Amino acid sequence: MTDAREPIRVGVLGARGRMGLEVCKAVDAADDMELVAMIGGGDWLFNAADAGAQVLVDFTKPDVVMDNVHWAVDQGINMVVGTTGFTEKRLERVRGWLSHKPGVGVIVAPNFGIGAILMMQFAARAARYFESAEIIELHHPRKLDAPSGTAGHTARLIAAARAEAGRGPVPDATSEELPGARGADIDGVRVHAVRSAGLIAHQEVLFGTQGETLTIRHDSLDRSSFMPGVLLAVRAVVDRPGLTVGIDDLLD
Amino acid sequence: MTDAREPIRVGVLGARGRMGLEVCKAVDAADDMELVAMIGGGDWLFNAADAGAQVLVDFTKPDVVMDNVHWAVDQGINMVVGTTGFTEKRLERVRGWLSHKPGVGVIVAPNFGIGAILMMQFAARAARYFESAEIIELHHPRKLDAPSGTAGHTARLIAAARAEAGRGPVPDATSEELPGARGADIDGVRVHAVRSAGLIAHQEVLFGTQGETLTIRHDSLDRSSFMPGVLLAVRAVVDRPGLTVGIDDLLD
Amino acid sequence: MTDAREPIRVGVLGARGRMGLEVCKAVDAADDMELVAMIGGGDWLFNAADAGAQVLVDFTKPDVVMDNVHWAVDQGINMVVGTTGFTEKRLERVRGWLSHKPGVGVIVAPNFGIGAILMMQFAARAARYFESAEIIELHHPRKLDAPSGTAGHTARLIAAARAEAGRGPVPDATSEELPGARGADIDGVRVHAVRSAGLIAHQEVLFGTQGETLTIRHDSLDRSSFMPGVLLAVRAVVDRPGLTVGIDDLLD
Amino acid sequence: MTDAREPIRVGVLGARGRMGLEVCKAVDAADDMELVAMIGGGDWLFNAADAGAQVLVDFTKPDVVMDNVHWAVDQGINMVVGTTGFTEKRLERVRGWLSHKPGVGVIVAPNFGIGAILMMQFAARAARYFESAEIIELHHPRKLDAPSGTAGHTARLIAAARAEAGRGPVPDATSEELPGARGADIDGVRVHAVRSAGLIAHQEVLFGTQGETLTIRHDSLDRSSFMPGVLLAVRAVVDRPGLTVGIDDLLD
Repeated sequence: MTDAREPIRVGVLGARGRMGLEVCKAVDAADDMELVAMIGGGDWLFNAADAGAQVLVDFTKPDVVMDNVHWAVDQGINMVVGTTGFTEKRLERVRGWLSHKPGVGVIVAPNFGIGAILMMQFAARAARYFESAEIIELHHPRKLDAPSGTAGHTARLIAAARAEAGRGPVPDATSEELPGARGADIDGVRVHAVRSAGLIAHQEVLFGTQGETLTIRHDSLDRSSFMPGVLLAVRAVVDRPGLTVGIDDLLD
Repeated sequence: MTDAREPIRVGVLGARGRMGLEVCKAVDAADDMELVAMIGGGDWLFNAADAGAQVLVDFTKPDVVMDNVHWAVDQGINMVVGTTGFTEKRLERVRGWLSHKPGVGVIVAPNFGIGAILMMQFAARAARYFESAEIIELHHPRKLDAPSGTAGHTARLIAAARAEAGRGPVPDATSEELPGARGADIDGVRVHAVRSAGLIAHQEVLFGTQGETLTIRHDSLDRSSFMPGVLLAVRAVVDRPGLTVGIDDLLD
Repeated sequence: MTDAREPIRVGVLGARGRMGLEVCKAVDAADDMELVAMIGGGDWLFNAADAGAQVLVDFTKPDVVMDNVHWAVDQGINMVVGTTGFTEKRLERVRGWLSHKPGVGVIVAPNFGIGAILMMQFAARAARYFESAEIIELHHPRKLDAPSGTAGHTARLIAAARAEAGRGPVPDATSEELPGARGADIDGVRVHAVRSAGLIAHQEVLFGTQGETLTIRHDSLDRSSFMPGVLLAVRAVVDRPGLTVGIDDLLD
Repeated sequence: MTDAREPIRVGVLGARGRMGLEVCKAVDAADDMELVAMIGGGDWLFNAADAGAQVLVDFTKPDVVMDNVHWAVDQGINMVVGTTGFTEKRLERVRGWLSHKPGVGVIVAPNFGIGAILMMQFAARAARYFESAEIIELHHPRKLDAPSGTAGHTARLIAAARAEAGRGPVPDATSEELPGARGADIDGVRVHAVRSAGLIAHQEVLFGTQGETLTIRHDSLDRSSFMPGVLLAVRAVVDRPGLTVGIDDLLD
């Protein structure tokens, strides 16, 4: 399908960071893309424009990403942004910039892992049919926050789906609890964070009803797992003007 | 919501069998249903009509179920059928009978477990995004067939989804194999059947791509797990004339 | 081996309770045992002596079990006790009674599941070789305590094995925690209690070190799983005078 | 304990290979060892002797390892060998060389992963108590053989333990099997080999009996997981003259 089209011309911002390097490799290896610019900290952004980039992928830092987006939108270059720190306020500012550039697209995603996104979609869909729902996330012991952002997000999706289906609280007769044993409570969904050497990034969502359980588990081994999602976003953004948050809608 | 409606009047055929008894209990416990007839082998079918049944649930035997369906359709009574042995030819005959009774509905389902159905739906959806897909089903050692019907069905769904997404064969460099080690091949999807004391009925579908895996697992502990699906079908069939195969479409 | 011996003559106390009934069935089905007395609440204990019981199995209540043990020891009948509520003080009293009856044996065990006992033995053995150790127990939502007694016991075994091997605290950089996310802390080992419909009684012990994890998981489906352990104790107690706590030492 | 001793002087053969480099890093990072020689292909072995190495770790090739071992034993230097290809005949030759050097130790191990070894030890121990035993190994799709050597070895250990305990065949009523569904048969133990992108090296051993299952799972993420076992062997070999095969006996 793509061979009738010209390759998409892609530039990478934050190209010397760990994620940036992975993106460069992935773009370079994709048949339907051409890597036209690798911009690191201190490099001149205009190189990307000079190289004719149609899409910029940004894995930089929260303190520079807004300037990058502003500049790219201004130049009429589409963006795929994986840099963290996007609050609703920041998203609103991006929307403002884009309102003056109707043909330009920006995709901002907190997570490009297709497996993680499917896990969350499936969890949201299963939630309405089961009495119980509980989350166990498991990560390496150097992680600072517990539970993970993905686990928190999944819990809120489940809680919303349960509410919509008219489900009450999950059954739980616990009357004698050692503090913390039942995990953290996020909108009524219990979340447990396991930390162990030898782990990387894993999450299990358990649903149960009379006589059966359904478990959805995602295991992420390294950041290369984000690349299929980044490439999916690069392909999508050229035909998707305006702001898109998350890559959920790009699946199907 | 249902309290504005009259309870659905339900009769059970095969009421003295193990599944039949479970259905009687489940119908009896449901607020929006009334159990009006329990018909066992040798009992008079007309009792169900006399009792004013609107829906008959049939967990009988392959050699009597067709007569039951024919009779019920003729009487204008809706049916929910869990009895096994429905070939395409049998379904065609049911469609024929229903063509003369436009208001009557029949739902025939090989599996009423909502968890199993969601597992299959999720598997079909995930299949397009992952390089690899493989199935492990685990059952008690008294099971006669390997792999299970559910595993075979899941494999075919995955194979179809992969084909539609233009995916080629799963990667597999195996060149030296002890016979059977790589499982059975169903349309290019490998299926492994584990048999062990202490197990009941379980299935795991594993998807993998560079750097990540997604696993969907269903554990079924006893036949009570089918009851939510049976009740869902009873509620649906009164507003669903014609033949419905499987309860997939009743979810959402 | 046992065919040269007379069958062991076994009586069951609490024979009309759920566990008692299972024990009666299991003793009856064992080739090397004879079920000679089934004593329920209100029945006459002396019937067991009259029937020539060599071993009494007691699954009764905390408020009657001490009288039963006292009487049996006095009569020179061995006992296998699964009734709960044995404090160190109670065990001391049993030791006192036995000191006057050197030929009589009593085995008191909080758990007769061989799988659970092996899980704990393996966990204690693995603990010394891994940097990290963490426990996830999963039970039906009607359970009152969290975590389970087995999980607490396993955590203490792991902590002791780590201390003996000179291991310091498990690595954990968590600095921002939603209360409860990291589970309960039992002697430095984190324990998570999951509660869900569709579950019965399960426990997973996770060990991790650089580049690898080892997981030991026990799934218990019903109380029949305790019977092999009860029979093991019945066979052992006839040659094992004095008090034995737990069936760990009977394995191997 | 070790601070009273001089650090162990270690040389690495095959130091430029992937495993060799990992060993160099691990030795260098160990407080109780000193890395005194890194010998690659073409380098002069005598450098290791000149540097005063007490232990040589060999991760080279089957065609050079025997010369390396012969030379080291002759020089009175202990060896830890992870190179593959050690047949019984080769081990016999090493024993012959060592018979003339009573103070020298050689440890040859096919697998230095402590987790994998514990998995096998636990499996051998559990095998006698369960009716059923089955193995699922899961690896990346570039693996050539199915099942893995570790899975085959585990199956034979389980079969031997079952035979010793007088256990007959595992229960299995399968009468209708799609070829391969029930896996490969190794001494009566069924072994299933899963191959998927996103996997590395994993094995699950499932034991089952009436009402319960016990699962032992090992996940290996990268070759760094072998290093604790290599260091354990280095520490042990200086006090362990003669030939030791496998590191099993070094655990406890």
